[in-house]
Parts: sequence; C-alpha cells; structure tokens
Amino acid sequence: MPFEPAEFEPAPLIKRPPITFHEEKPGWEGYIEWEKYPEKKKIAQDILHKYNFSLPPEFQFAPLPDTNPVIDSPRWKEYHDALGIGYIVDHSWDVVQKEKPDIIHLLKFPYNGETRRDQLLEGKITDNKYHFVRNHGGIPDIDEDSFELEIGGLVKSPVKLTLKDLKDPDQFPQHEVTVTLQCSGTRRIEQIREYPGDGDELINAPWGEGAIGTAVYRGVPLKKVLKYAAGGVLPECQHVEFIGAETYFKKKNVFNYAVSVPYRKVRANEEVLLAWEMNGEPLPKIHGFPLRVVVTGYIGARSCKWLYKINCLAEPSMGPVQRQEYLYYTAQIGKQNAKYSNGFSIQQMPVSSAIIEPEDKKVIIHDGTITLRGWAYSGGGNWVERVEVSPDGGSVWYAAKQEDITDKHYHAWRLWKIDVPVDAEGWLEFCVRTWDSSNNTEPTYVRSAWNWDLHVTSSAHRIKVYSVNRSRPETAARLKFLDEHGLTFEPLTRPIEASLETEEEYLESVRKYPREPLS
Amino acid sequence: MPFEPAEFEPAPLIKRPPITFHEEKPGWEGYIEWEKYPEKKKIAQDILHKYNFSLPPEFQFAPLPDTNPVIDSPRWKEYHDALGIGYIVDHSWDVVQKEKPDIIHLLKFPYNGETRRDQLLEGKITDNKYHFVRNHGGIPDIDEDSFELEIGGLVKSPVKLTLKDLKDPDQFPQHEVTVTLQCSGTRRIEQIREYPGDGDELINAPWGEGAIGTAVYRGVPLKKVLKYAAGGVLPECQHVEFIGAETYFKKKNVFNYAVSVPYRKVRANEEVLLAWEMNGEPLPKIHGFPLRVVVTGYIGARSCKWLYKINCLAEPSMGPVQRQEYLYYTAQIGKQNAKYSNGFSIQQMPVSSAIIEPEDKKVIIHDGTITLRGWAYSGGGNWVERVEVSPDGGSVWYAAKQEDITDKHYHAWRLWKIDVPVDAEGWLEFCVRTWDSSNNTEPTYVRSAWNWDLHVTSSAHRIKVYSVNRSRPETAARLKFLDEHGLTFEPLTRPIEASLETEEEYLESVRKYPREPLS
Repeated sequence: MPFEPAEFEPAPLIKRPPITFHEEKPGWEGYIEWEKYPEKKKIAQDILHKYNFSLPPEFQFAPLPDTNPVIDSPRWKEYHDALGIGYIVDHSWDVVQKEKPDIIHLLKFPYNGETRRDQLLEGKITDNKYHFVRNHGGIPDIDEDSFELEIGGLVKSPVKLTLKDLKDPDQFPQHEVTVTLQCSGTRRIEQIREYPGDGDELINAPWGEGAIGTAVYRGVPLKKVLKYAAGGVLPECQHVEFIGAETYFKKKNVFNYAVSVPYRKVRANEEVLLAWEMNGEPLPKIHGFPLRVVVTGYIGARSCKWLYKINCLAEPSMGPVQRQEYLYYTAQIGKQNAKYSNGFSIQQMPVSSAIIEPEDKKVIIHDGTITLRGWAYSGGGNWVERVEVSPDGGSVWYAAKQEDITDKHYHAWRLWKIDVPVDAEGWLEFCVRTWDSSNNTEPTYVRSAWNWDLHVTSSAHRIKVYSVNRSRPETAARLKFLDEHGLTFEPLTRPIEASLETEEEYLESVRKYPREPLS
Repeated sequence: MPFEPAEFEPAPLIKRPPITFHEEKPGWEGYIEWEKYPEKKKIAQDILHKYNFSLPPEFQFAPLPDTNPVIDSPRWKEYHDALGIGYIVDHSWDVVQKEKPDIIHLLKFPYNGETRRDQLLEGKITDNKYHFVRNHGGIPDIDEDSFELEIGGLVKSPVKLTLKDLKDPDQFPQHEVTVTLQCSGTRRIEQIREYPGDGDELINAPWGEGAIGTAVYRGVPLKKVLKYAAGGVLPECQHVEFIGAETYFKKKNVFNYAVSVPYRKVRANEEVLLAWEMNGEPLPKIHGFPLRVVVTGYIGARSCKWLYKINCLAEPSMGPVQRQEYLYYTAQIGKQNAKYSNGFSIQQMPVSSAIIEPEDKKVIIHDGTITLRGWAYSGGGNWVERVEVSPDGGSVWYAAKQEDITDKHYHAWRLWKIDVPVDAEGWLEFCVRTWDSSNNTEPTYVRSAWNWDLHVTSSAHRIKVYSVNRSRPETAARLKFLDEHGLTFEPLTRPIEASLETEEEYLESVRKYPREPLS
C-alpha cells in the first residue's frame, strides 16, 4: 500500500490508525516512550509495514541542489504521519528556524545543519546559534521542572533525579569543559564525490567541513552521579547506555534513541559530562534541553541529547544507532557483503583537519604568499600538536607557527592560520595534515580510507586554487593592462576581449623561435 | 549598445546594417569572401564593435546541463545577425539534424558534436553519421559543378581547378587512406572537472572521449596536385595554407577559416590528401562537401573543410585558428600571462587512449574478470603498439592481447578489448595507457599535463567502477539473498530494507571479537 500522508494529517480521529501514540507525561511534549513497551513497538511496526514510503533520495551520483534545505526527504515525515505523530516533525522544523536560522540546512528531517565557513572561523568557541546539529529524530519540548532522569541497570541503587538534584552543587561537583563535537560524517562530501557509497535507509548527510563545533559545557561528571546518586556500578558493568527522548526509525521499527560508551571512558577524569549549559546559556532545545550527555573525544552520536535514562550494562547498547550505524568498514566491504558485525563501531575520533579559507576553486591574487585558515582536531584522548600545509598536493609541507594556532585544550580543536610561500601560478592543490599528541597523522588521499558507510573522512583535506602571483613582472603587467582597460581578472574563464599582443610582437617572437626545426 | 537580434532577423532591408554582405558566387550558398577584401572586413568589424553581444557561457565551474544540445550559446548567432547573415546559422543547424541526428550535440553553433560510446565501439571505421564534428563556423552549401579550387602563393604557376579536374585519374593519382581525426579538445572534460581554464571567447567544447573518429578518405595527394597542376612550389615555400568557406569570428573581427601545415608534411607520402569521399560516399555537407583537406596524424583543425583556396607561404598562416588558437601552454601560463607567442602550436597529436566500456561510476557484477573496451591512437607519424590497463589506478598493468586489438594502420586508431583479473570489491579505479611505435606513452594524471587552453588531454584515462565479485562466497550469498527477496543490487546507494543478519548472528560475532580490549 503506497503511503498517502493526507490520510493522517487533517483527518478526523476515526480515520487514524487504530492506536494513536500518546505523549508520555505532562510537560514532555513530543516524547513517546517506546523502549519500555515492546507491545507498543510491535503495533507501530505493524502499522509501518502496511505502507510503501517514499524512497530515500538518490543524491550521491548527481550534484547537490543549490537549495536550503539541501535535501528535503519526505520519508521520515511519512513514518511519523503513519503513526499519527507528524506534528513532531513540524515542531522540529519550527525550532530549527528559531534557533539556527543562519546555518546550512543539509537535511530537513531528521535535522542536519552545518556551520558556514565564516562562522567556523569566528573563534575557537562556536556561537550556539552557529554550532552544527545532527539530529536523529524530532526535537522534544521538555519542561525543566517536569524533567527527571532515571538511572538503572547494573548499579547498586537505581534512582531518579530531578534537574534540581543534578544542579545542586552540594550533591554533585560541577565542571566546565571545552569540547569539540563532530559528526563522524564530517567532510563526507569528499567521499561521495569520488566514490559514492552507503545504502543506509537513513539519509547520511553530504556534510562538508562544518559538521564540527566547539563549546564550553557546564554540568556534572557522570562518574560522580553514578557514584553519589546510584551507589556506584556493579562489577559486571562494562558499558553505559544513554537513552534520549526522540522517536527513531530503522527498517520500519521504532525506537527511542539509544547509544552507549564503555564504563572505562566514564571513569576517566571529567570525560563524560551530564550537561545543561552550553557557552554560559541553557542548552538550546535543538541541542538537548534540558539535559544531554557530552562525551569528549568521541563521535558526536554518543553525546545523547534529551537524555532521560541511563542504563548500566554488561555489553554495548543494542540500539540501532550503536550496533547498526556508525560502523567503520574496510574497503572490501560494501553492499555486496556488509553486515553490522563486520564493521567496527566508531567511538573515539581520529586526528583530522580542514582548510576553511580560501574556498576550493577560488582565484587568489597575491604577492608570493597565500594565507590559509582552518581547524584541526584529534579525539580519543589526543590533542593537536602540529598543523602542516602543502602547496603542491602533498610533497613539500610547511608547519603553522604555534602562535598562529589557538590554545590547546584536552578535548577541543585548534584553529590555525598559515602564510605559505607560493611562487607557482595556475591551479595549485593545497592540502593540510595534522599531527596529534600521539604522533598520529592523516591518510594522504580520500581513496586511502574510503569506506562504504562514508564515515571518518580524515584524509588530508584538499583545495584547488588558481594562483596569480603579482610579484612576477608579466603577471603584474597583465593585471595593470586589465585595470587600464576597465576589465576584471574574474570570472576566471571569461575571455579577455582586448588584444594582448600586437602582430609585430607576435611575429618577432615566433620568428626568433619558430615552430619547425632548421633541417 | 547591447545587441538585439530581433532588429536584424525578420526586419525589412531598410533596418539592416548599411552594408549587407552578399554571397560570393552562384552555387556557393552561405559563403562570403572576407580574405580578399580588407575593406569589407573593416566594415564588418565596425559593425561588430557597435554591439555588446551575449557573454560566452560560464559552464566550467558548474555541472553541464543534461540537455542536447548541451550548450546553446547565442553569441555566434548574434555575430552573424549583426552582419545580416544569420540565415547561415539556421541552415547549419538544419544540416546537423539531417546528417547527425543521433550524436551528442555539445555546442549548437559553431556546431560541435560527439560520437556516443556505443557508436564508437561499432568498429574500427566510424559510420559517417556518427563521426564527430568540430566546426568553426556555418556550413556552406556548395554546388559541385560550380566549385573551383584556387592554388596560389609561392608556386610556379598559380592555377584554378574544378572538382572534375581533381577527380580525373589521368591528371592526378587517387588514394584511399584510413585516417583517424580527433579534436585536440578530446577528453577536455577531464581537465575542466579538475581544473577549469581557457578564457577564449570561442567556447571550447566540454568534449568527452568521443571527439575522435576514423574513416577511409579517397582523394588526391596534395603533393601531386602542387607538382602537376601548379608546377611545384618555389624554394621559399615552407608552409601550405588552407582556406575554407566558413565565416569565422575572433575578437569582433571576421575571417574565412585559415590554417596551415609545413610543406615538409605535404611532401611525405600520402600524408596530406584533398578528399571528396568518406567511407565510399561523397563527403557529407557537415564534413566539408565538396572538398576538404585530410592531414594525417595532425589535430583535426588542419584538415580544412569546404577548401576553396591553397596558399603556399614562407611562414605559417596568420589566420587566428593557426596563430591564436590550439596553442599548448605550460602549467605556469594562464589568464595572468598568456600570449599567443608563448604557447606552441598543436600540430601532430600525441599517443592517447580511452576506456569506453564500462562507463565511469558503473556497478560491475562479475566472476573475477572485468572486460574493458576502448580506443588507442597515436598521431605524428606513430601508430599504436601496445595497450595496457591497470585495475588499481596505475600500479599493476595488464597488456591487451594483439588479437584483441584491431589492425594497425599508419594513421588510424586501434580499438581494443581486455579481460582483467579482478579480485577486489568496492570502488576500483581503472586506467589505460598506450605505447606507440616510438615508445611514447601517456602522462599518468590529468594534473601531469594540465594546460590553460585545456588541449590534448592525453593522460591515462580513468574510470571508477564498483566491483561486485560473484566468485567470493559472501558476495554470491548476498546476491542470492537479494534475488530471493525480489530485490536488485542497483541502484547502488539504495538501502536493502531486509535485515541482513539476525540478532543471534550479530551477538555471536561481536562477543567473539568485542570492540573493547580485555584489560
């Protein structure tokens, strides 16, 4: 049966599916509990199986549209409509427009939005209204006073905490940590352009260099909450699962968002935080208000938003985001043989970097030096030590000076700037690579680390720029000529209509060095 | 003054420009003589300078439209309209549709059309209706009986010949030669995609692999015509100029099409032919009826169509096609410093080749062997000796067997086929390189030979294909699974909605090799 959303939207209740799915509790709008109720999940699954939904968009073999939102796939809206909860999707888009009016909307729903180049370079801390967003479902609207967090599983004393409890400094010590979060899809567009992949029914967004951002988060270390509020974990506890209040779909099944990190990670310093504040402000709704997890050095997906439940487990979460997504395959694995068990789970993020300025394919008129700016980051407990730029595609490398790189933090990127000596003209390929505190650096080419799910594009980021070196006399003369004739150098491929050489000059030159040999 | 074509087109004579430019002689429609009349050229130039014509299209930084014709630049039509000869443009398009209905129309006017992949592989001789076309102006319509060819300049006896004279075997010996002609822009799209260039006001067409073709031409060697009809050349003659009956524009000046080749080339065997027959048929109008030059081993631009005049000269032709176009620059030359005198003239063509099958970005389901087909050519007096294909981007190379390559001709391509052993799956990069009779081979990457005018893309031609190796058991099992579920493997990036692994299988596997270390 093909899906017709009109059947559900403004229709009277009688025409709705036999069961409508109600919000869980007062003050929690857009939150429907699935994980506690297997029978409810089954009913939803049966409804979803009745319909043929729109196909996911085929964008990987064609240029992306020049629109904002770039991709407006109706598929997930249809899932919600089929369950009678389409209002969640509409509400989420309203929040996007309010909280993130100025970023690049890559995917309308689940919302994926990317920071613009100029916003990325504004400073080492990304403004809340520019910070990238990668959501996996609708944005719930949760009243702070009605909020409670449930902690269970392999803990000594299962417990429920209010936000007031968590924010009480007498109960839990508070910390501020500067943290870079990134999607493991950052820079995916480079993999898509060279080698499309990924048959996941989730639309894996065609991210550029802006699916990364840095903020100061205030909250309490999860380690302390487990210890003080839940009496500590039982010896069998090896993983900690986070459940968020979105509704999440996978292969016509419905879930709440669930992920996990190893307990060992939670135990280390302040590396896993339960946070309510971002850059001195309450968490924006789109970033998880009233409470989210912030896992330092890991893929952003583990920093669960709208956190309402923590489960201590012996094994990683069985949530689809944890076991079926964010897997890193080898180049020999693809649609022909991929299984969830033969990719490894992306948790810690590797060293990577990007050139943000200049932009790819720009003309740079300079006097023998080209300035580049960008970001560099390493996760997994490492930080950035050195940033190097090559003006020739990866043969000669120049290091950025330490004074041109922002401060080190344990868990944050460094923004960098470098002036590279450039004599050559025409198209040059610049690339950047970063060395981290464990001496890791980046693969050289996209090809070096292509993988079917198109994650972790950490190869040396490359741009091509057209170099025009004004310190060369012939170039200076041409620029002057253009100026005198009221012509501009750009657009690069637009012809110069004026004659550049007289017939006499031409003949003198070609007679001196003729095309044909003497004998 | 901006150009408004409506002023000229259906308007009464009174509103036309003060001078209209008349056809030269009865039976020669669409031919206007410019080269003999400097004063007429000056009047045309003055008219052209009055107008601002449409800008040339900016297609090099954006994907090409999915239309046929691909590029419909009005600029050259406007030039013709301004001189009151727009009917030539309309007539040319009529001829295209009649003589080349099935090829890819890259540029509507001057007409540039490319042979399709399936047409290229039909056989070593390209069918006349599929042979590529690169015109530089309108197609004249010349009555065979009114035709005459004028030979002058540095010859002993300037002379005029009718077609009947030329075809008379008692006056001149006839030859049939199998000749590959190609535009020096063949495969330009590879340079455009990686590094746009070329500010020429001529729209340099975004050719793919089909701007090449092979035909058997019948005609008389120019060497014999100069000797028997014009008494031979004078000692000062070093170059032979050909003038064709098109109207040609450059920087708001007007010309007939003029090019030249060295006299030394004309003297060698049957390397320069005056031809009236193509594959056993009279020359199609679009290919130069009634008479054209065929210069073996050279860029197609020298094989002047609608030839009506030959000039023997001490120096190369001063026609803009000869001195201002088809120049090969170094990578350090571009819009910032290019002059006509600092590129060298492209005459002989180098060794090059292309993979025509499979097409770039295709999925290939195979049993351990992938078959590729394509063309290989070398000009400049060389022929193809060996064709090699690499399945890994240029590290391991396999040679095609001689029995899988078409016959050698002195001046023609060879079509080849090769079965390459392929174990690997996922995206593979294949490339081809050819070795010619002088042991020349091709540069490895587009980057190796990028040049501002985007000519001679002779680097190893590359395709990416997605390899699915059915001889691997897991892949065979997946294909069977899809088949049993009524699913197809393609589109590659469309998800498989069915589950590929049970929860038990998943858990068994991840418990055996867990993500986290032991201690």
